[in-house]
Amino acid sequence: MRTHQPAITLVHIDPTQPESLHVQIYERLRHVITTGKLMPGMRLPSSRMLAVELRVSRNTVLAAYAQLIAEGYADSRPGGGTYACPNIADSGFSAVPKQKTLAASPDQSAVLSNRGRMLSAPDVSWAARSRTGMAFRVGAPAFDAFAFSLWSRITSRVLKRKSRSIVGYGDAAGYLPLREQVALYLATARGVQCDLDQIVIVNGSQNALDLIARMLIDPGDTVWIEEPGYLGARAAFLGGGANLMGVPVDDEGLNVDEGLARAKNRRLIYVTRSHQFPLGAIMSLDRRAELIALARKTTAWIVEDDYDSEFRYSGRPLQALQGMDDGGHVIYVGTFSKVLFPALRLGYIVVPKPLVKAFNVARVVSGFHTATPEQAVLSEFMAEGHLVRHLRRMRELYRERQQILLEAAAAELGGLVELAPSDAGMHLVGRPLNGRTDVEISAAAARDGIDTMPLSIYYHDNAPRNGLLLGYTGVRPPLIWSGARDLASSMTRNG
Amino acid sequence: MRTHQPAITLVHIDPTQPESLHVQIYERLRHVITTGKLMPGMRLPSSRMLAVELRVSRNTVLAAYAQLIAEGYADSRPGGGTYACPNIADSGFSAVPKQKTLAASPDQSAVLSNRGRMLSAPDVSWAARSRTGMAFRVGAPAFDAFAFSLWSRITSRVLKRKSRSIVGYGDAAGYLPLREQVALYLATARGVQCDLDQIVIVNGSQNALDLIARMLIDPGDTVWIEEPGYLGARAAFLGGGANLMGVPVDDEGLNVDEGLARAKNRRLIYVTRSHQFPLGAIMSLDRRAELIALARKTTAWIVEDDYDSEFRYSGRPLQALQGMDDGGHVIYVGTFSKVLFPALRLGYIVVPKPLVKAFNVARVVSGFHTATPEQAVLSEFMAEGHLVRHLRRMRELYRERQQILLEAAAAELGGLVELAPSDAGMHLVGRPLNGRTDVEISAAAARDGIDTMPLSIYYHDNAPRNGLLLGYTGVRPPLIWSGARDLASSMTRNG
Repeated sequence: MRTHQPAITLVHIDPTQPESLHVQIYERLRHVITTGKLMPGMRLPSSRMLAVELRVSRNTVLAAYAQLIAEGYADSRPGGGTYACPNIADSGFSAVPKQKTLAASPDQSAVLSNRGRMLSAPDVSWAARSRTGMAFRVGAPAFDAFAFSLWSRITSRVLKRKSRSIVGYGDAAGYLPLREQVALYLATARGVQCDLDQIVIVNGSQNALDLIARMLIDPGDTVWIEEPGYLGARAAFLGGGANLMGVPVDDEGLNVDEGLARAKNRRLIYVTRSHQFPLGAIMSLDRRAELIALARKTTAWIVEDDYDSEFRYSGRPLQALQGMDDGGHVIYVGTFSKVLFPALRLGYIVVPKPLVKAFNVARVVSGFHTATPEQAVLSEFMAEGHLVRHLRRMRELYRERQQILLEAAAAELGGLVELAPSDAGMHLVGRPLNGRTDVEISAAAARDGIDTMPLSIYYHDNAPRNGLLLGYTGVRPPLIWSGARDLASSMTRNG
Repeated sequence: MRTHQPAITLVHIDPTQPESLHVQIYERLRHVITTGKLMPGMRLPSSRMLAVELRVSRNTVLAAYAQLIAEGYADSRPGGGTYACPNIADSGFSAVPKQKTLAASPDQSAVLSNRGRMLSAPDVSWAARSRTGMAFRVGAPAFDAFAFSLWSRITSRVLKRKSRSIVGYGDAAGYLPLREQVALYLATARGVQCDLDQIVIVNGSQNALDLIARMLIDPGDTVWIEEPGYLGARAAFLGGGANLMGVPVDDEGLNVDEGLARAKNRRLIYVTRSHQFPLGAIMSLDRRAELIALARKTTAWIVEDDYDSEFRYSGRPLQALQGMDDGGHVIYVGTFSKVLFPALRLGYIVVPKPLVKAFNVARVVSGFHTATPEQAVLSEFMAEGHLVRHLRRMRELYRERQQILLEAAAAELGGLVELAPSDAGMHLVGRPLNGRTDVEISAAAARDGIDTMPLSIYYHDNAPRNGLLLGYTGVRPPLIWSGARDLASSMTRNG
């Protein structure tokens, strides 16, 4: 209860105000107690310390404390110390009026800018959707298998050894040693062709997509998105005011001809070329050539989101579309959220040469760089070969977990969900067989403590296909088994 | 040279290509060596490991390595191992053509969106301007006095104890325990009136200003900025397409009457109320009342940037403008860059109630939250009282350093720079007496290894005043003394 010392030692008082100083101190402390900011049982600062801090006499503070005690907001304990009283805050009593809202503008939309309205319009309630490790959360890495102690050791070392070089403002494009590691990794693992200055470290891939939307499209510009496709990309482009055009995907990836038949123009095309989200197709060579030719002909940008191409369980790694494009039309986006952990908020953009300067200025203006200590830890983690080793272990682990999901589904979900294996990715897409829509099944499962994503929510323009996304990478095997049983039970009861 | 193991173990090869696999491996490795991505002396992956990784025979890899060695791109060492050859990379030789630029659009501005052009237009070359700790860098905290070992210990503890709760996607508004600490701190130390849900943790105050510009102004909207004033704010609003209006400041802060005389309308007013940057005025009670009345009457937003109000060396802490406003017109911005260190990239916005939901959605769409581990460490740092203790120590230290700067200037810069003490802040503004402009003096000083900022660059609309900003908080006393001597010598030689 009282392991933490109080952070409260500064209390605002103003000698020009008519109230006496002890009344001001009393009122300020009463406010923090009644609003629960000073939690019940927390110790108030010592009267001596507060007097020094405020440059008032100790008697002034003692008078304020006496009044708080007299009115039941605080009590003193034998052995010394004054503590916020639990009874007041527990009762929900509040002596201070709530802050008034903006009376002149009761309608929130009236006080936002036009672009503020666009940016806050997307329906994004998908953050922190379910518990970490819960079956069958989509896109979560195996937190139980990440070497946090190793990460922590490198952090200590970085803070100790490099404390001077990593504490001040850094390069807006990111910490140079990390950019070097990313360049090396991309060149060798993905066949991305770039110079070091083309790499911009950002605050996760969502931040990358938002920056790309700001830099390359204006409100009303047509943007092709895959259908079904990634909600984060849809949100970023919608938030930028894009005219979204959902282009169907098939076994060869984005259907370029279908796109051309539907939209006369396009400013930007978003693809997950290596492993289409959420259906998993690899874009064929023909389609890739068509796409690049189209971008070249009409000066459209291609955004290649290579969000999980690390997790390919058979065959060889695929070359990025970026590496096939000799014209600088492809903006490549990658993330460490899937290969390490999402809370790290580290991703990167490979920016075509002509855009490098503009993206760097935009990074400065919009917030500089991401936290340097974390960038430094990641660069050491990569330089020492831990990333490659971790990925190798995770590929093995995820392949096993997918196999376990398939076995559990065969044993528990027969006649309810049809699942086929996949040689890549972090989830499988099942076909429901109980005659209910994926949204109904998913909602019922959520009530029963099972996290699934209905495939149909990933459609924007086209008629949705029924399906259930079942993530397996972040779920320990016993939970995969119990999750399959619970999902079967939920589908049977609600079938 | 070779303490780091190579991160390179994945090499893209494609069996559908006409080149044989060993040629592809050779070409890929040659590329990473000649472009310097595999640094001279770095070890190539073992042929056995690479063969496993690529699912090719070891002989295929050995053939590629033999070719690299034969052509001088690598060499083998007695005892095993193949290493990138220093000679090739050192000579600048490159066997691969440079990536072509976008031939269809040689003009960079033609390929950016309109808003991308605005966002990348501000002249921001001020990041990473000078060495940490250099005299007289402006706005740098005392890195030499920060308890990095304590920070590191808390980090280890957080990663150990809380690894599960801080690794997944979190709340877009920020890590809840940190927001609780910030709320407590603001309520007690600054007199900010807010509920917990009004606090949004962002990636430093520049990120806050950019988000505010996006959410609250459209291109062409008039924004009042202080003159002289903070360049980061000017960049954020310019980047958002604002019509900037520089309003002069005097000893009472922003001259509201002058602003009204110059601009008929205003959508947003930016002020550094507690300690005007860079001149240091505290906004008077009359001006504050005028400002709030103006915002209320015309539905303008006030952005209060409280960037360094922690560093007040005499008198009592000042109450935030936000706490005087009962109408929700004030958006309050704070940062930990000055009180801890800038590389942390942590700041916060106190958002008026009607805007809370919109700001939270915008945070999700534009990149979720900042890295959770760092937020968790900061929340523990605050909860244990370290922030308050650190601030108390820094106030003492900075007061002393200002005194030392005044003494050094009196001893060394007499007749060259006139300096007056200040009871707050992180720099002093000196008046040059040698008949040269501040820009000339500052440029000459920079050539002589002294970092000063000319006051005139902080003006946008109005005739600039001559002055030199001399930061002292981040400079150790011996460097303050030698810096003063060097500046005197530079001004005398260039006078």
